[in-house]
Amino acid sequence: MDQEIPVGMLAQLLGGKLSDPAAAETIVGGVQPLDKAGPKDLAFLWDPKYREAALQSQAGVVISQEALPGAKAPVLVVADAQGAMLTLLGEVYRQRHPDPEPGVHPQASVDPSAELGEGVSVGAGAVVDAGAKLGAGTRVMPLAYVGRGVTTGERCVIHPHATVLDHCVLGNRVIVWSGAVVGKDGFGYLQREGRHIRIPQIGGVRLDDFVEVGAMTTVARGALEDTVLEVGVKLDDHCHVAHGSHLGENVMLIGYSRMGGSATIGRDTYMLQDSAVGQGRTVGKNSIIGSAAKVLYKDVPEGGKVMDIASGAVGHVRAKRIQLCLQKLPELRTQVRKLEKQVAALREQD
Amino acid sequence: MDQEIPVGMLAQLLGGKLSDPAAAETIVGGVQPLDKAGPKDLAFLWDPKYREAALQSQAGVVISQEALPGAKAPVLVVADAQGAMLTLLGEVYRQRHPDPEPGVHPQASVDPSAELGEGVSVGAGAVVDAGAKLGAGTRVMPLAYVGRGVTTGERCVIHPHATVLDHCVLGNRVIVWSGAVVGKDGFGYLQREGRHIRIPQIGGVRLDDFVEVGAMTTVARGALEDTVLEVGVKLDDHCHVAHGSHLGENVMLIGYSRMGGSATIGRDTYMLQDSAVGQGRTVGKNSIIGSAAKVLYKDVPEGGKVMDIASGAVGHVRAKRIQLCLQKLPELRTQVRKLEKQVAALREQD
Amino acid sequence: MDQEIPVGMLAQLLGGKLSDPAAAETIVGGVQPLDKAGPKDLAFLWDPKYREAALQSQAGVVISQEALPGAKAPVLVVADAQGAMLTLLGEVYRQRHPDPEPGVHPQASVDPSAELGEGVSVGAGAVVDAGAKLGAGTRVMPLAYVGRGVTTGERCVIHPHATVLDHCVLGNRVIVWSGAVVGKDGFGYLQREGRHIRIPQIGGVRLDDFVEVGAMTTVARGALEDTVLEVGVKLDDHCHVAHGSHLGENVMLIGYSRMGGSATIGRDTYMLQDSAVGQGRTVGKNSIIGSAAKVLYKDVPEGGKVMDIASGAVGHVRAKRIQLCLQKLPELRTQVRKLEKQVAALREQD
Repeated sequence: MDQEIPVGMLAQLLGGKLSDPAAAETIVGGVQPLDKAGPKDLAFLWDPKYREAALQSQAGVVISQEALPGAKAPVLVVADAQGAMLTLLGEVYRQRHPDPEPGVHPQASVDPSAELGEGVSVGAGAVVDAGAKLGAGTRVMPLAYVGRGVTTGERCVIHPHATVLDHCVLGNRVIVWSGAVVGKDGFGYLQREGRHIRIPQIGGVRLDDFVEVGAMTTVARGALEDTVLEVGVKLDDHCHVAHGSHLGENVMLIGYSRMGGSATIGRDTYMLQDSAVGQGRTVGKNSIIGSAAKVLYKDVPEGGKVMDIASGAVGHVRAKRIQLCLQKLPELRTQVRKLEKQVAALREQD
Repeated sequence: MDQEIPVGMLAQLLGGKLSDPAAAETIVGGVQPLDKAGPKDLAFLWDPKYREAALQSQAGVVISQEALPGAKAPVLVVADAQGAMLTLLGEVYRQRHPDPEPGVHPQASVDPSAELGEGVSVGAGAVVDAGAKLGAGTRVMPLAYVGRGVTTGERCVIHPHATVLDHCVLGNRVIVWSGAVVGKDGFGYLQREGRHIRIPQIGGVRLDDFVEVGAMTTVARGALEDTVLEVGVKLDDHCHVAHGSHLGENVMLIGYSRMGGSATIGRDTYMLQDSAVGQGRTVGKNSIIGSAAKVLYKDVPEGGKVMDIASGAVGHVRAKRIQLCLQKLPELRTQVRKLEKQVAALREQD
Repeated sequence: MDQEIPVGMLAQLLGGKLSDPAAAETIVGGVQPLDKAGPKDLAFLWDPKYREAALQSQAGVVISQEALPGAKAPVLVVADAQGAMLTLLGEVYRQRHPDPEPGVHPQASVDPSAELGEGVSVGAGAVVDAGAKLGAGTRVMPLAYVGRGVTTGERCVIHPHATVLDHCVLGNRVIVWSGAVVGKDGFGYLQREGRHIRIPQIGGVRLDDFVEVGAMTTVARGALEDTVLEVGVKLDDHCHVAHGSHLGENVMLIGYSRMGGSATIGRDTYMLQDSAVGQGRTVGKNSIIGSAAKVLYKDVPEGGKVMDIASGAVGHVRAKRIQLCLQKLPELRTQVRKLEKQVAALREQD
């Protein structure tokens, strides 16, 4: 928070009840984790697993869904602690990053054929190209690029230096982060006379409502068919969605995860950091692709949970021994087979 | 295609012959894969391996190099099906993404000392810096940056938010995608008095004809010598070419592949996704560096084919077992050696 | 160098002594590695391990800290060869990439509420947003973005297409490369009613003196606490520092290395290429996280040295055999255990 507020006022705002009415006079001015909060901070018990930390917290007030008898700090009990946290942090966030004023900055460039809905803002240095249609309340931040014929729904945010290329279709409240590129041509080539010849990529990109595209994340347009991200898909930074892929609702890609062309990921699936799904592969809904796992040769069924078998970090002396053994694994196997025969022969003799 | 066209006209355009003359009246308006095309689409049999799919296709017309007796759809036989596909998709692509008008947009910034060839276009918000020389027909798209003293050949495309830094030299028809950075200083440091001191990187970058640099891909300038990408090199998205590396003709880097400084890759070599070549390493021509393979300690000879040994995705219960065994591999090896001695002793006794 | 210079003048400039006074007349015009330099180049013996290459070098002059009796080239002996190299390369670099003139380019956009220190330059198309404060001599290069309320120390460089988002705090001589994004919201969500709901990220980012952020590298703002990079941290390209992480002095991240939220890395630690440190993990000072190593489940103590156990590149036939054995490792272990029992029984009988 950028301002100080008495705990009593906080209780009114969030509709909660104080364990200790005297705490109403306490002034808090910051939000901190339970174990780091001091008497001038507030802290949230937003997940029951942190109950012990909440009991020990030195915060000026702990906001919780349950009473916390024995807590060192005063407790503000609310009906929905997560909801209260989202509300309060959202308020602080909006104070720090206020919505820009509607309107087109004099140093922005909006093509005369573009259509801007009510309340749209276009920041300094931003470019909205020919035929683009921006839904009400959409914010094109400074130096963002919105290509020809792009359409967006309402209240989208295109951050500074984000790139949305020609004809991409965005739903409502889509967020494209700085450095993201949406609608780049897919990487498809034919070999002709010893050269790589690009196959023109004529598909599009569709980002449905609430989709979020992280910084440095690329979403390629389809070769023939559209690349589609359904409602609520969230892409972290440094991810890649290749041409013609289809991501079901709420799919989440964590940092550096990626997929080859025409891959399909079912709804509510997680791809953890640095994981990959190969070209044309299908992953069923509700699956988890573990960190660094590469789904290259086999599909993953619904509810699947796959892991990488070898990534990790081991002390370097030990790691070198394991590496060496791994390199000699076929020989070890041969040795074991030979031993099996010898032992079988010995047992027969007995 | 953004317009509908009778199959007969298509036959004339592409110079082919229809299996069923009656099909000339059919109107098609889209291009789809063989297995997804409907009666209003056309589809290509561009690779003989899809012959069965072509026979079963429901397309309005299948364009093929060979007659397809028994095919469910009318067939348009052409001399070069791939060529026809490239022609037709190229036409559709150009309709959707028409070349910008030549000239400098009033909201672009072109330094007075820059030289623009005939037909060059510079889009809104783009910057062409001092002393840059752009060859005829080159397109600097909106918000692209062309640095001081950069020279390009003819018909290059610098996409929105692409960055070509000072003094890089581009050949003809080079494409730099949105978010790419060409000519950043290489990452070279000396340790002096407990600090990392940057070694000034005085080399350049040379991208020869037909080179393509993907979104989020970085090509660093050399420390002393130039970083060179020869004719026809294609870099996918999220790749990295480090300072002083040399890539031979037609080398292809697939997503997230990368190399350390002063690496050399021979012509026609492929680096598959997430592969790496370490500092100073050499990879011979016509090689394949498999997905996730890391060439760190040994060069790869001409025609080499190397793979990673451990990446993959395995069901998580089984994966944990394998991980555990892998961690204990040195002990397993010791056990086997002990067994060998014991069995040898037993066999001697017999 | 962009100009030719007699070796004698070089000796005066660098304060050194020529092994062969006659060499003072030699004209050199380029800097090359010892093994590639010709008679018109100079070369540095900047690390004693290249002594043999220095002896054999064909350079016009070799600059060295020690006399090199028997060297084929004339030798210029200086008190500090690395220092001489940094000086000379720095001079060449400044000739090629001269500092821009102070002042605001007419096609830049600087918000009236921003404060620019003495000698600040803001290039064409750059945007400095409301309330930003730029220290003396800071250069905002063309098309760079400096967000609302950002503060920088003196002599920072924000390269073309770099993005520094709202309220980030930069020390002196911080460098942010093209395509980098500093201050993006961290990737934190709650699951509510089957949707991913973003947790507003109210922390900031602090980059201390001499920090360098590579191209395509992301530094996320903290959830509650600031993300902090202490003095001298150097981030290569394609790296990621997640929300609330803390990097001690001089930490170096090499290409594609990355960390989860709230990770802590002690001073002088190196994360080699493609390495990762998981959420909340701690790595002690003076550690080395090897290439591709993933520190996910265990902290690393001070001076730790950890490696990945399985990454590499092996001929593909052999690699497939190893992969197969690896998949069957639990069975191999079972076989060995069975053999142990059988052999023990046999030995007992004897």
